[in-house]
Amino acid sequence: MLIVTTSSRIVLASRPVGAPEPSDFRAEDVPVPPTGEGELLLRTIYLSLDPYVRGRLGDAHAYRSASPLLPLGEVIPGGTVCEVVESRSPGFAAGDIVLADLGWQSFGVRGAAGVRRLDPGAAPVSTALGVLGMPGFTAYVGLNLIGRPNPGETVVVAAATGPVGSMVGQLAQLAGCRAVGIAGGPDKVAWLRENGFAAALDHRSPTFGDELAAAVPDGVDIYFENVGGRVFDAVLPHLNLGARVPVCGMVSEYNGDGPAAGPDRLPGLMSLILSRAITVQGFHFRPYAASHERRFLDETAAAIRAGRVHYREDIVAGLESAPAAFAGLLRGANFGKLLVRVGPDPTQGDS
Amino acid sequence: MLIVTTSSRIVLASRPVGAPEPSDFRAEDVPVPPTGEGELLLRTIYLSLDPYVRGRLGDAHAYRSASPLLPLGEVIPGGTVCEVVESRSPGFAAGDIVLADLGWQSFGVRGAAGVRRLDPGAAPVSTALGVLGMPGFTAYVGLNLIGRPNPGETVVVAAATGPVGSMVGQLAQLAGCRAVGIAGGPDKVAWLRENGFAAALDHRSPTFGDELAAAVPDGVDIYFENVGGRVFDAVLPHLNLGARVPVCGMVSEYNGDGPAAGPDRLPGLMSLILSRAITVQGFHFRPYAASHERRFLDETAAAIRAGRVHYREDIVAGLESAPAAFAGLLRGANFGKLLVRVGPDPTQGDS
Repeated sequence: MLIVTTSSRIVLASRPVGAPEPSDFRAEDVPVPPTGEGELLLRTIYLSLDPYVRGRLGDAHAYRSASPLLPLGEVIPGGTVCEVVESRSPGFAAGDIVLADLGWQSFGVRGAAGVRRLDPGAAPVSTALGVLGMPGFTAYVGLNLIGRPNPGETVVVAAATGPVGSMVGQLAQLAGCRAVGIAGGPDKVAWLRENGFAAALDHRSPTFGDELAAAVPDGVDIYFENVGGRVFDAVLPHLNLGARVPVCGMVSEYNGDGPAAGPDRLPGLMSLILSRAITVQGFHFRPYAASHERRFLDETAAAIRAGRVHYREDIVAGLESAPAAFAGLLRGANFGKLLVRVGPDPTQGDS
Repeated sequence: MLIVTTSSRIVLASRPVGAPEPSDFRAEDVPVPPTGEGELLLRTIYLSLDPYVRGRLGDAHAYRSASPLLPLGEVIPGGTVCEVVESRSPGFAAGDIVLADLGWQSFGVRGAAGVRRLDPGAAPVSTALGVLGMPGFTAYVGLNLIGRPNPGETVVVAAATGPVGSMVGQLAQLAGCRAVGIAGGPDKVAWLRENGFAAALDHRSPTFGDELAAAVPDGVDIYFENVGGRVFDAVLPHLNLGARVPVCGMVSEYNGDGPAAGPDRLPGLMSLILSRAITVQGFHFRPYAASHERRFLDETAAAIRAGRVHYREDIVAGLESAPAAFAGLLRGANFGKLLVRVGPDPTQGDS
């Protein structure tokens, strides 16, 4: 058995004001605690980097997480795919690959109840953090349960090559909708075209507004809001009567560090909501997990195997890369689901 | 039979910029057209004045009606309770009291299909424009179908002595909720206290924000948004996880005539919607009429007869009073459902 005495981890050193800086994080090596009865000692293989974590770091103007602020000195939270190093629970054995919430650290101890075993034969284990994980389920809840798409409707999604957006667009296609994807840069736009989006737009284009108008000749029935900023402004005038706007994240607003300058767009939004009978609905995936996650996992795994759902991962190497990669995520620098490969993946033949 | 040759009417003379001025309206006497086959000649008894009409007059910044703009020179629209003067439809007879959409005029001709007969024995006929009419049904749809109240929840409504707000508050009480009403002035606040509201607040109070916080110790589960402005701002921070905000009108925004000054409150609103999983949903009563109006009318008429629902009317005399009364409505000067008594009400013994 591997003898583990030390874990590398990254903790919150100071609350970021605006975009996180390297100095807001601190790397530490700490002793690994003993594995208690019913617990597992875990080694991190993949760490998920997700925009919602920005809210937990604090001192952001716009985004207030429903979760409490992370105390200074604590490990940055995050979903992980781990290998079981030592098990003191009868349900798990050393070598099992599991989904856990170990955060930004290389080793850690968790109770078995908070961990789910993964089947490496069903799909690459990294997908448990992306298309078959929280981002994919967020897309599923937001589009299917909040947006409730009807065949023939137009669905617009931004950050459309990201782990949530790409799934939204593909689920929209499976629902018989016309999917319009928005992303930043020609390589991302090309990926959207290759993956069945009826239209793919680059929000950096100087004529983005005109291109959007041309791409939604019948207006917009569902706008899946996961970025905020100017994309939201551009889409609003195209919303149809009875349009639905599931709200799952606003990356461009996360880093705001004070009241935004005018003009005040709130009265205009409320008037549009009123006059077009629009529903704007924030949601978290968690309350839907008990009732819908099993079905989501089964349907999505089958769709991946059948080649009807594609996904893309953006994997950086080494826990020490996490702070810079996280800052890049909040700027939209990643292309696909952003993961940190913290340690070797035995299911891929790593040792 | 009464011989009618001339109708008095009020038409749109110019598009109001901001609050409507008397000069935006013009009074005219015009010949009454002949009553065609299947049509009715109607005499207006009560005319309803409603905030949504502001949107149809145009040149308002914030409120864009889903209905087309009213052309200049056209009669101002509005619901009316009328007496049938002449019937060329087998379903109606002279002397019948009906609900129609005659607008701001004393006589007019309508097809029988667009008219509904009222039973003066069931309730005073004026209520067909208020508690048993569009305002009451708007409250019913917004609270019961959009807001979906659960017993023990806290419901906040502004303009709470108005025809919509007073019904929202009373329906909330019938649903087992704690109703908090907001109104302007001590007489309105006193009416709320007399009518079962758990708390009644005056939005003109210099300590309104503190009073609101004290009145909602468990937060707000439903905010029925029908006024906009500073009440909306004050309520927002108190919205609970999963709160619902049915949006049916924003009187304080209707008269806006340009982009509002900063700061920009939209990012803050969207972040709140996200972090607290709030639903903000605009609605019109009309799509719900076929499925729910019959039940609403039966339930509400029974509740009025049983003394479980109260209503208040604010009736001004004479069609020529309509422009000033309408401007007052948009300022919140009325107390109860605002009606113009255009002509005698035979059900009240008028001649």
